[in-house]
Amino acid sequence: MDRLIEAIEEAQNPSVVGLDPTPALVPPQVVDSFTDEVRESIEDESELPAARLAVAYFEFNRAIIDAVADIVPAVKPQIAMYEAIGPAGVDTYTMTCEYAQQQGLYVLGDIKRGDIGSTAAAYAGHLSGVTDGDGLYDPWHEDAVTVNPYLGTDGITPFVEAATAHDKDIFVLVRTSNPSSSELQELELAGGEKLYERTADLVEGWGADTIGRHGYSHVGAVVGATHPQEGKALRDRMPHTFFLVPGYGAQGGKAGDVAGMFDADGSGAIVNSSRGIIGAWRKSEEYREDMSADDALDLVARCARKAAQDMRDDLRVNVYR
Amino acid sequence: MDRLIEAIEEAQNPSVVGLDPTPALVPPQVVDSFTDEVRESIEDESELPAARLAVAYFEFNRAIIDAVADIVPAVKPQIAMYEAIGPAGVDTYTMTCEYAQQQGLYVLGDIKRGDIGSTAAAYAGHLSGVTDGDGLYDPWHEDAVTVNPYLGTDGITPFVEAATAHDKDIFVLVRTSNPSSSELQELELAGGEKLYERTADLVEGWGADTIGRHGYSHVGAVVGATHPQEGKALRDRMPHTFFLVPGYGAQGGKAGDVAGMFDADGSGAIVNSSRGIIGAWRKSEEYREDMSADDALDLVARCARKAAQDMRDDLRVNVYR
Repeated sequence: MDRLIEAIEEAQNPSVVGLDPTPALVPPQVVDSFTDEVRESIEDESELPAARLAVAYFEFNRAIIDAVADIVPAVKPQIAMYEAIGPAGVDTYTMTCEYAQQQGLYVLGDIKRGDIGSTAAAYAGHLSGVTDGDGLYDPWHEDAVTVNPYLGTDGITPFVEAATAHDKDIFVLVRTSNPSSSELQELELAGGEKLYERTADLVEGWGADTIGRHGYSHVGAVVGATHPQEGKALRDRMPHTFFLVPGYGAQGGKAGDVAGMFDADGSGAIVNSSRGIIGAWRKSEEYREDMSADDALDLVARCARKAAQDMRDDLRVNVYR
Repeated sequence: MDRLIEAIEEAQNPSVVGLDPTPALVPPQVVDSFTDEVRESIEDESELPAARLAVAYFEFNRAIIDAVADIVPAVKPQIAMYEAIGPAGVDTYTMTCEYAQQQGLYVLGDIKRGDIGSTAAAYAGHLSGVTDGDGLYDPWHEDAVTVNPYLGTDGITPFVEAATAHDKDIFVLVRTSNPSSSELQELELAGGEKLYERTADLVEGWGADTIGRHGYSHVGAVVGATHPQEGKALRDRMPHTFFLVPGYGAQGGKAGDVAGMFDADGSGAIVNSSRGIIGAWRKSEEYREDMSADDALDLVARCARKAAQDMRDDLRVNVYR
């Protein structure tokens, strides 16, 4: 986790921008502008919507990355949004990750993978790349990935090994930000503790042998901003586990809600906002349906930059130091 | 689940072949045979191992699909194996799914996705495809997908809706086959039941409004063959939930271990074998390192067919009717 912590220090900003494009979050003229170019490369007209979005998502992401790269330490592309448009979207996901890394950003791939031993080892290829003797090919360009704990230790170990070997990190789901997360995660166990607390203890243990120079291991935890009290208790319970905190902004979390997830030094957590930043242009009075695609992307970028600055300042004042 | 149940009836075979290629499971001369062809299409020599495997995996899968399509009702490609080689592998995954559907097979995509509401809706695109007004584009070619329950109902609902709308299915992880699955899944709750039993009740409920003409809903469950007693109890507990049973063969499960997961009519479950079928060639005395790629693929196909027949006959005698 050292690389992420140092990137946060340098930016003086514990926030990460979620790159989660949807058809509604990309200005329609941007999508339309690729129609002719894309039509030449598809086999069937039915592929046009997905193919246009795949190109538009990358240009949208690039505009945002360029606008925030000097403000935030990290981005978090959510692979579901890209899988929604098929393999062409997956290509856009990897291109986005690669571009973000080239701009010096730490790339947290929100992939929430999880499976049993040999299959988890295959998923760990997201971090370890493809090797063949001397060469190493890294097709995914991720610095960290999110992982689901439901299958237990043998589904996690391959990720921990890959992360440690390549100085990357994983973030395991502990307490997610959605309303029905309580159905399983809050179940009370026979010993009196909650399921997510047991998960938390497992996560702290999975990272125990990988603690870096800033006191945090290669194994982080996902703890939603919508659970401020539980988050504060988890901060004490998991002293070597760095938190990824989703749910700020559009999902309702505020700086006060995440304050307890930071440690006494103002470290220990990074807060994500997605729609609040990449969709900030939709609240702008400057937007007009008859704008050019270039002007719309410029507006997207300016609004994202402003929203990222506001979030940074909110966290600096209320949480960080 | 009706389409799957009827395909099983027609084949008189409740088994599914796991298409989980790894570098060790594909004969090396098959991989080598694509070196020259692939080298022309890559930008950097470091991409060669992944690019060769991507092509070799498809040819390997095609040989197996052709060999078993008249024996088994379904195949289950494990997307982790394809993601392990990057986006080119994801293309191979979708090409494999499409080819298997063209051969009349039900395609169960083992993707184990799971996320919160709006993100789960994006993942549900695996089943619903991409729509834009009139057109529908289905880039994934899956008839069902596996889903992780750790995030609760709002992470599942989008999948159930997509499955119901498109006559497809989902299979939710309940009791997985791996050793450390017990760490969370077997935890005893304050009320005395186990966590996986609570998950089971949720799964049965998620499907309750989608029960088809054969008595099973669009929402199935993953129950490992390595837990025969628990599987039998779950069969009673989840009367409208069809089971996907991994862990037969290479993971140690036998027909007797899965018998309890079938209902009184011999329906209610489908049993997966991966390495036991696609890797059967490795136990053949016919294999020689200096075989041609074509001869090696022919051997792969013949051994897979024999192993699939043996598994079918084992299940027919011991389980099915």
